[in-house]
Amino acid sequence: VKKPDPVIEPGATIGILGAGQLGRMLALAGARLGLKSHIYAPDAGEPAFDVAAGGTVAAYEDEAALVRFAEAVDVITYEFENIPAATAAFLAERRPVHPGPLALEKTQDRLIEKRFLNDLDVATAGFAAIDSAEAIAPALTSFSGAGILKTRRFGYDGKGQAMIRDAAKGEAAFASFGKVPAILERIVPFAREISAIGARGRDGSFRAYDICENSHANHILSRTEAPAAIKPATAQRAGEIAKCIADALDYVGVIAVEMFVVVGTKGEELIVNEIAPRVHNSGHWTIDGTATSQFEQHMRAISGWPLGSTERRGRIVMDNLIGDEALRWREILQEEGACLHLYGKSEIRDGRKMGHVTRVYMKETG
Amino acid sequence: VKKPDPVIEPGATIGILGAGQLGRMLALAGARLGLKSHIYAPDAGEPAFDVAAGGTVAAYEDEAALVRFAEAVDVITYEFENIPAATAAFLAERRPVHPGPLALEKTQDRLIEKRFLNDLDVATAGFAAIDSAEAIAPALTSFSGAGILKTRRFGYDGKGQAMIRDAAKGEAAFASFGKVPAILERIVPFAREISAIGARGRDGSFRAYDICENSHANHILSRTEAPAAIKPATAQRAGEIAKCIADALDYVGVIAVEMFVVVGTKGEELIVNEIAPRVHNSGHWTIDGTATSQFEQHMRAISGWPLGSTERRGRIVMDNLIGDEALRWREILQEEGACLHLYGKSEIRDGRKMGHVTRVYMKETG
Repeated sequence: VKKPDPVIEPGATIGILGAGQLGRMLALAGARLGLKSHIYAPDAGEPAFDVAAGGTVAAYEDEAALVRFAEAVDVITYEFENIPAATAAFLAERRPVHPGPLALEKTQDRLIEKRFLNDLDVATAGFAAIDSAEAIAPALTSFSGAGILKTRRFGYDGKGQAMIRDAAKGEAAFASFGKVPAILERIVPFAREISAIGARGRDGSFRAYDICENSHANHILSRTEAPAAIKPATAQRAGEIAKCIADALDYVGVIAVEMFVVVGTKGEELIVNEIAPRVHNSGHWTIDGTATSQFEQHMRAISGWPLGSTERRGRIVMDNLIGDEALRWREILQEEGACLHLYGKSEIRDGRKMGHVTRVYMKETG
Repeated sequence: VKKPDPVIEPGATIGILGAGQLGRMLALAGARLGLKSHIYAPDAGEPAFDVAAGGTVAAYEDEAALVRFAEAVDVITYEFENIPAATAAFLAERRPVHPGPLALEKTQDRLIEKRFLNDLDVATAGFAAIDSAEAIAPALTSFSGAGILKTRRFGYDGKGQAMIRDAAKGEAAFASFGKVPAILERIVPFAREISAIGARGRDGSFRAYDICENSHANHILSRTEAPAAIKPATAQRAGEIAKCIADALDYVGVIAVEMFVVVGTKGEELIVNEIAPRVHNSGHWTIDGTATSQFEQHMRAISGWPLGSTERRGRIVMDNLIGDEALRWREILQEEGACLHLYGKSEIRDGRKMGHVTRVYMKETG
């Protein structure tokens, strides 16, 4: 029998695995609510440590450190889905971990994720498991000669992905990924990329933000706009898909579901690309664009607290500041109404997410 | 010759004297902008330490600790005006201190403050210096028999104040304050209490928030509403007074000027009650009510950065959560659109500011 989660009150400590910008913004949102944060990550130089009451610098496999961490916190969450399953299971024996192990199991592996979605009658791109180089040629043929080869695990921002148009090139890519298990995905001729972001509370309540639309550059999210330029019925369906997924995972916390919008003969259709069992870059606009940011909403959900308003303050554009773009900080500060966020990373690197800027276009208020 | 202030860039460390909720919210706002905070305060249990990258627990007179603090930071500010003048002077020899020594000198002492204001042609309540018990009776007579006795220094939230209607009671109050230098103030028959909050940059630029209106209970701020229910010309004049004061102090940072609105034969007149050379409780509504909170604005100003938009998002009501009122946190979280802030104080005490809640009434957006 599962023990009921403890009641979390202001003053409690939230344990966060991972110390990047998502952990940092979670800790900042928790602080607003009177919650302390304790960050656990292998590298002391990461930015979330600077805003947290407590910190542990240790490997995710360090059981002694994990025990001390669990004892120092009241509930545990994470900023990225690639924490080792064994780490999550070890911690879950000691403190509630939200989102739970099922969410990690279904989202850490692209093959498992797609099968899980299809079992829910949620459409995905066509896919084939690629466990050996020999599997590539027949899969490619079945997808009319083109597809995207993706490692099943540990991919992000386009890493571990390659567009494939012939079997030899596919085999080379498979080798370059280290021959780890992969999938070949059919290419989806999408019109738009959108995110459905919502939160599910411990009590099963669910609240979604307005569906937003994403643009990528070099496989990294570049811009998110809310609302997405899609039909109201499509937006409603996108929110329903996110809720369906969250319910199936008995999920607690913020979930982000990336989808493609395909315009076919039946109008706008939705294809789920991937699930992020965490706060997500495409939800950063909620900090300045709603009364309850995705970070606060996540802290509320994992604490067993009521979920907050997701009402949008206007039309919103969020731009990531990648690499050198962060050097534009002073220019952005000069721009009337632009909301600058910098993540406190000590070094600018190409492709590194350094910050973001949100512009909210409100209607006249009086 | 005064050295020019150094250029502050993201990644710099802001030194903050004081570790209460104002220091905490300053640190949180700085973190958004990629600034680190280092808190200096005598008591380790205070809430700002929980959200700062660095901290020093030491007395304000500990010169060795002050030297180490100054060396660890790039610019220094404070969350309350009662830091010892010697501490500020000692630090100012080592790092820029904003707001500067002149602001502290003119605002730490009620007599000096009122004379400073009158020299600027800014109206204050009538006042008389009370250096001895014998001075009370004649001053009281000149004020038609009633006044408020206030210690010249270290008063806040009604502490060191007494309403006086006869000389004997005044002499008793003077004795109860320890016979420290005091002033007697004429009672102002005000219609409203308002705050003018603005920021002055290093370059002399000034931006004011919309004038807000305050209600007190037991001498502690209870509610702030923005905008204040005053005539546009009165609001404009209030902003001009704040700018005039800031200019006269060669001020850098956020300044709050509390004023009384007296409705006389000439319409609405403004009487300045006191100046706070810092972020102020009556400006907490700016966190949820504007794109640039007073805390971010202060961090921008002291860093020599451009000041941000002060545009109001709607009609706004901010209620302090004093003492046991903080126990209402769950009920507030259930209220659609209410923005809860808790300060992470470990113990509820009567009259202690534990948090606040802001309600923003937006017009319809689309």
